[in-house]
Amino acid sequence: MTVLASLVIDILNYVGIIAFAVSGALKAIEKDMDLLGVVVLGFSTALVGGITRDVLLGVTPPVNITYLPYPITAIVASLAALPFARYVTRGIKPFLYADALGLGAFTAIGAQVAFTHGINPLGIAMLASITAVGGGVVRDLLANEVPMVLSREVYACASIIGGFAYWPLVELLPGDAALIVTVLVSSIRIAAIERGWSLPRARSLAWKGDRPRRRRSS
Amino acid sequence: MTVLASLVIDILNYVGIIAFAVSGALKAIEKDMDLLGVVVLGFSTALVGGITRDVLLGVTPPVNITYLPYPITAIVASLAALPFARYVTRGIKPFLYADALGLGAFTAIGAQVAFTHGINPLGIAMLASITAVGGGVVRDLLANEVPMVLSREVYACASIIGGFAYWPLVELLPGDAALIVTVLVSSIRIAAIERGWSLPRARSLAWKGDRPRRRRSS
Amino acid sequence: MTVLASLVIDILNYVGIIAFAVSGALKAIEKDMDLLGVVVLGFSTALVGGITRDVLLGVTPPVNITYLPYPITAIVASLAALPFARYVTRGIKPFLYADALGLGAFTAIGAQVAFTHGINPLGIAMLASITAVGGGVVRDLLANEVPMVLSREVYACASIIGGFAYWPLVELLPGDAALIVTVLVSSIRIAAIERGWSLPRARSLAWKGDRPRRRRSS
Repeated sequence: MTVLASLVIDILNYVGIIAFAVSGALKAIEKDMDLLGVVVLGFSTALVGGITRDVLLGVTPPVNITYLPYPITAIVASLAALPFARYVTRGIKPFLYADALGLGAFTAIGAQVAFTHGINPLGIAMLASITAVGGGVVRDLLANEVPMVLSREVYACASIIGGFAYWPLVELLPGDAALIVTVLVSSIRIAAIERGWSLPRARSLAWKGDRPRRRRSS
Repeated sequence: MTVLASLVIDILNYVGIIAFAVSGALKAIEKDMDLLGVVVLGFSTALVGGITRDVLLGVTPPVNITYLPYPITAIVASLAALPFARYVTRGIKPFLYADALGLGAFTAIGAQVAFTHGINPLGIAMLASITAVGGGVVRDLLANEVPMVLSREVYACASIIGGFAYWPLVELLPGDAALIVTVLVSSIRIAAIERGWSLPRARSLAWKGDRPRRRRSS
Repeated sequence: MTVLASLVIDILNYVGIIAFAVSGALKAIEKDMDLLGVVVLGFSTALVGGITRDVLLGVTPPVNITYLPYPITAIVASLAALPFARYVTRGIKPFLYADALGLGAFTAIGAQVAFTHGINPLGIAMLASITAVGGGVVRDLLANEVPMVLSREVYACASIIGGFAYWPLVELLPGDAALIVTVLVSSIRIAAIERGWSLPRARSLAWKGDRPRRRRSS
């Protein structure tokens, strides 16, 4: 990987840690948790995906615990979100873009780590997307909600596409694969936000005669 | 273990992966998730139990990620469930039987792996039942429900009995222990389905004077 | 660590396992689970925090599975809680005190294990509090509730303070650090119970113009 690509991904990784921590903190505020809940949800959203990846690969203790700048960034970002929580909701554009950049960087880093551990292409895609969306799943479980990524627009899907793209890319362009994956995932996610893309509901594929919306319109 | 016993368990393991993946996919459809949710719940239900066992034993990366036929079977089964979802619900007999066979095979495999890592008999029973029911617990958590196995008929219980039986069996009949455990667990589970067996509610043992049903009948 | 300090912590560790297992069993009864649910929630509340710490540190299989007295104590305590469940609720003072002693001992043991694995001070605090409150989080997730520790009075907070205190203490007083942390955490928790301490709600810090209570009084 070139020095520049490495630097870009490193910066976007911090953008992701901050955006993810803020999304955890906002969820904690929404659920009327206390200060500790804000830090725990912020930390978990930002870092539990990477921790899970490391545990699955046998990298213990996980980097997100041992490399201090990561947990400190997540904790500070969670607390810093508090005074701005009136203005920054998860729905505003600048926040969604930061989140999309983080999604891309997390996916690329997860794919890289899995690849260097000799995992197969399907496993790379799984570990890349666990890195990117695992934290959000834990945030929603702690808030006692169905994880957003399982029932909403193109989010985890963008990460999975990037995870699958990493393996052919790293064979062809070993120096640039991570950066291309970052750009790819972030672009898909941003396009999905702008154009309102969503995956088909499972139910619409499963039960052809049982769609409430159509019944109402008839 | 004889070649035949090994083959039977291997086949039943795939029966289990398919039945468990389908049960996860059906839950995702029930909860109106999107296509990705179907795959994630199918995959998790089929494979997260074994992944958890491997992580607890330090077997990383887990076999359910590195041995490609397992995740591929789970993902394909999840998607294949979609067009049949109108006809296959979790309550129909053929599905419950397939699920029971999987429960047996997963328990036996979990016990075997724990035993070869030198775990104590109680630990073997725990890891065997985590292998068998851990995926279903995660499925229900992701669907934001109380895990079915904690409040329903004899299911995890069959697996735990099989897990405890493995250790004496493997000392007496090392070649047949896994197959006997598979048959034992599946038989208990099928008998429980047929006869409607259930464990006593904790509340009925805990508060003798506080049973709503009796009050009504008085 | 002196023999006496070691003995005191060992005894308080068992007090904690019993108190935590009982709190899990009571939650299972409250949620109308079956007998198995009582054992699973009791076991999880008492031991999953330590299991998570061990997995994160690469100590596999975890001590809470391999050292039989721990799981056996948790399982027996869960079942023993059943006949007394009418009299022992989680709100009564003797139970809260036992729980507070366990919180202290679990924190000290978690900090010790993390320290001996060369983890940084922030990581020690995290692993110490995961040891102490991780089980309670899993108990609440299995009961399909928002984890109590994220939205209630000073509980996890006491553990985190103790976790941060361990590192300077062990540098100054290596023989007594664990005992001091135990006493510190238990004392903060008991003081919080007695005086009704609580952390500020995140919402009160976040939205200055949006406090329902003030509006009512105006």
